[in-house]
Amino acid sequence: MGVEIERKFLLFGDAWRSLGEPVLLRQGYLSSTRERVVRVRIEGEQAVLTIKGASVGATRGEWEYPIPLTDAAELLDGLCEQPLIEKYRRRITHAGMVWEVDEFLGANAGLVVAEIELESEDQAFDKPEWVGEEVSDDARYFNANLIRHPYSRW
Amino acid sequence: MGVEIERKFLLFGDAWRSLGEPVLLRQGYLSSTRERVVRVRIEGEQAVLTIKGASVGATRGEWEYPIPLTDAAELLDGLCEQPLIEKYRRRITHAGMVWEVDEFLGANAGLVVAEIELESEDQAFDKPEWVGEEVSDDARYFNANLIRHPYSRW
Repeated sequence: MGVEIERKFLLFGDAWRSLGEPVLLRQGYLSSTRERVVRVRIEGEQAVLTIKGASVGATRGEWEYPIPLTDAAELLDGLCEQPLIEKYRRRITHAGMVWEVDEFLGANAGLVVAEIELESEDQAFDKPEWVGEEVSDDARYFNANLIRHPYSRW
Repeated sequence: MGVEIERKFLLFGDAWRSLGEPVLLRQGYLSSTRERVVRVRIEGEQAVLTIKGASVGATRGEWEYPIPLTDAAELLDGLCEQPLIEKYRRRITHAGMVWEVDEFLGANAGLVVAEIELESEDQAFDKPEWVGEEVSDDARYFNANLIRHPYSRW
């Protein structure tokens, strides 16, 4: 088991757009309950199956397995909860840390969030000027919830 | 994607007991809905993550991935729906076909079923004399349902 410690923020302005190359992510869920998430994701030519446990604060258990791209496409289109989540991800390095900026498409178009993965919950980090309000604990922004209640309907 | 075509039967008598070596299986579910099943299973020293789609007749889509034994133990004990399913499986060859005879433990003790995997839904096969009534379509016998409503409470 790995442990994922992540914090999530909204963004200011458009400066982030030119700071990283967008890569298309398609992801869907085989389970998206509070207790356990099973996610299928295609990023470029790579596919991965990820299992996550319940969040305790900003921390949750995580298990990841690469799977064949064709399997992932079958699972996304034939088996995952619909609609899928599609987003452009930019990886932006700032002050030695990597920020993942996700620009959502489809029913969640207009939503952009930035995530940073930490080694410990109290790890200090420098916030870029284009990073705004923290929404780590706001369940509306959980990817699994963006399927059932997309941003366009907030 | 593989396709799983399986038929399931109850057993007569005890003759099957001496026909195969029992191997302990521990399995649990990360999802166990009608639409999609995500199963973690440890069999001996092997562990596998299996995804299954909805059944259409005796047929369902199936995707399988070997995972590390330690991951499987973490997932079974920490993340899967409880209680787990534990059973002894015997593989018994009869008339050129392999029958899997599952003898359940714990809350499902007393239940024994035999399954045969086919190449097509109409494939002919010879039933051993210790194989009885077919229960392929009886949802009570689905492993996922044996968690929520175990045999001891029927």
